[in-house]
Amino acid sequence: MQLGSIEAGGTKFVCAIGNEDYRIQDMTVFPTTTPAETLQKCIDYFKKFPEMKALSISSFGPIEIRVHNPKYGYITDTPKKGWSNTDFLGTIKRALKVPTSWTTDVNGSAYGEYILATLFNEHIHSLTYYTIGTGVGAGTVIDGHFVGELGHPEVGHIRLKRHPDDLDFKGICPFHGDCLEGLVSGPTFQARCGKSGRDVPLTDHVWDIMAYYVAQAALNTTLMIRPAKIVFGGGVVSEAFLKKVRAQFAELMNDYVEVGPLDKYITMPLAKNNGSATVGNFALALKNYDRQG
Amino acid sequence: MQLGSIEAGGTKFVCAIGNEDYRIQDMTVFPTTTPAETLQKCIDYFKKFPEMKALSISSFGPIEIRVHNPKYGYITDTPKKGWSNTDFLGTIKRALKVPTSWTTDVNGSAYGEYILATLFNEHIHSLTYYTIGTGVGAGTVIDGHFVGELGHPEVGHIRLKRHPDDLDFKGICPFHGDCLEGLVSGPTFQARCGKSGRDVPLTDHVWDIMAYYVAQAALNTTLMIRPAKIVFGGGVVSEAFLKKVRAQFAELMNDYVEVGPLDKYITMPLAKNNGSATVGNFALALKNYDRQG
Repeated sequence: MQLGSIEAGGTKFVCAIGNEDYRIQDMTVFPTTTPAETLQKCIDYFKKFPEMKALSISSFGPIEIRVHNPKYGYITDTPKKGWSNTDFLGTIKRALKVPTSWTTDVNGSAYGEYILATLFNEHIHSLTYYTIGTGVGAGTVIDGHFVGELGHPEVGHIRLKRHPDDLDFKGICPFHGDCLEGLVSGPTFQARCGKSGRDVPLTDHVWDIMAYYVAQAALNTTLMIRPAKIVFGGGVVSEAFLKKVRAQFAELMNDYVEVGPLDKYITMPLAKNNGSATVGNFALALKNYDRQG
Repeated sequence: MQLGSIEAGGTKFVCAIGNEDYRIQDMTVFPTTTPAETLQKCIDYFKKFPEMKALSISSFGPIEIRVHNPKYGYITDTPKKGWSNTDFLGTIKRALKVPTSWTTDVNGSAYGEYILATLFNEHIHSLTYYTIGTGVGAGTVIDGHFVGELGHPEVGHIRLKRHPDDLDFKGICPFHGDCLEGLVSGPTFQARCGKSGRDVPLTDHVWDIMAYYVAQAALNTTLMIRPAKIVFGGGVVSEAFLKKVRAQFAELMNDYVEVGPLDKYITMPLAKNNGSATVGNFALALKNYDRQG
């Protein structure tokens, strides 16, 4: 069976066709331009696959995910120029006429990692997925359902204890200054060091400061939700960085609650090449198709 | 139908008999002494009600709530002297031989408030309940299920941004110093002001500092879980204090996500006289009985 995936990012869109094994059969990538042009490219792509039975969209946001809201399926009030108040889901459904799921990019990735963990026999029932890149966000799946009643989570904007060596940095979030995103998103390297993160060696103390905040994000998630696993993706994250995060997490937790071996609990994605959301989309499309069938 | 409730606190136990309308028909309160003596008092009390069909326990902790764990039903590694490694649930079930539910005190309260909200036609599907008293904890219910796979949440120990006028206070948590509980539990008044909270007028700036931290707890809960409602109970909380919390929450959120009218979103319990856990226990006992019947 052919299933479709749209991973809609602020910089680029990834459209893919896969099957019930969640394997990619065909894929295309194009830059995010205007809504009209970008969504038309999605439509043109999927029209080449008339056998596609269901589709799923994981989108940058904020988006409206409450099914009974008149704006369900819209990108709402986004800083991405031209995209506020875009009827993304409606435009796609009217053109392609297949059952189409709709959630956030990080929820899609969380679902993909949840499904992959199951396929790898990890026997977990809950998972939180963080992306730390241009922005910071997270999605949580519990027993196959996304967490969030009044809307999707916006974990990038939680507040944290400031690192003693970082008190002078005001943070770069235009809404909150020193929220999580304002302290650890990719562009904070430019703001703190005057250069891109990829040019800052991991031995630089700024990476310890970053790890301290990301460890607090993992700590607060653990203490609030107690998921079975926390996965970190996005451009800022590497296995070497997560080693630092685990060390700071252990110090902050001080053996207060058990989470099992830390290298299994705080991990990189199972999906390679940032593919978590595509796997999640295939699985969500299939689930939606099965429910309607 | 007669249903039983044990609200097990570190200071006192409340045992009650109620019905399917969650109304209390009989109640007793006694101090928490040794496990043997205290649990025997529970057993003696409920033996007077041979018609009781099911029972629910909401206990102080930490407790083991994972059903497949050999220590399921135990109070585990608690600072409460003499109570570590107590088979609370097993002792009660062997003596009373009725279906018995088992969860944390704050989960019990969260469930009670969730049920009461439904009875009051609030049409909500999720809720977080905080207690701010001798300790700080929270439980979250989503669609009738408690959040927490690796164990119950321990929200009292999340880290927060420090208030600029409170940077010299080290916090009183023996595990973490300035976690949420270390900053806002009842005994912090003694540590900060040298007197009990009830002797500190609400005009004192220390209450603004408290409200700043409690508002961050509400903010981080909102951004991580997006529940429909956050309820605050416990000795430190009053409606006048929550007014301060709401004002700080609004400032911290800066209109980033919508939560509806704040006085409906951040609220005192619907149950009077700290009765949330008893209502929750009756409802959980009934649910467990229905499932087994």
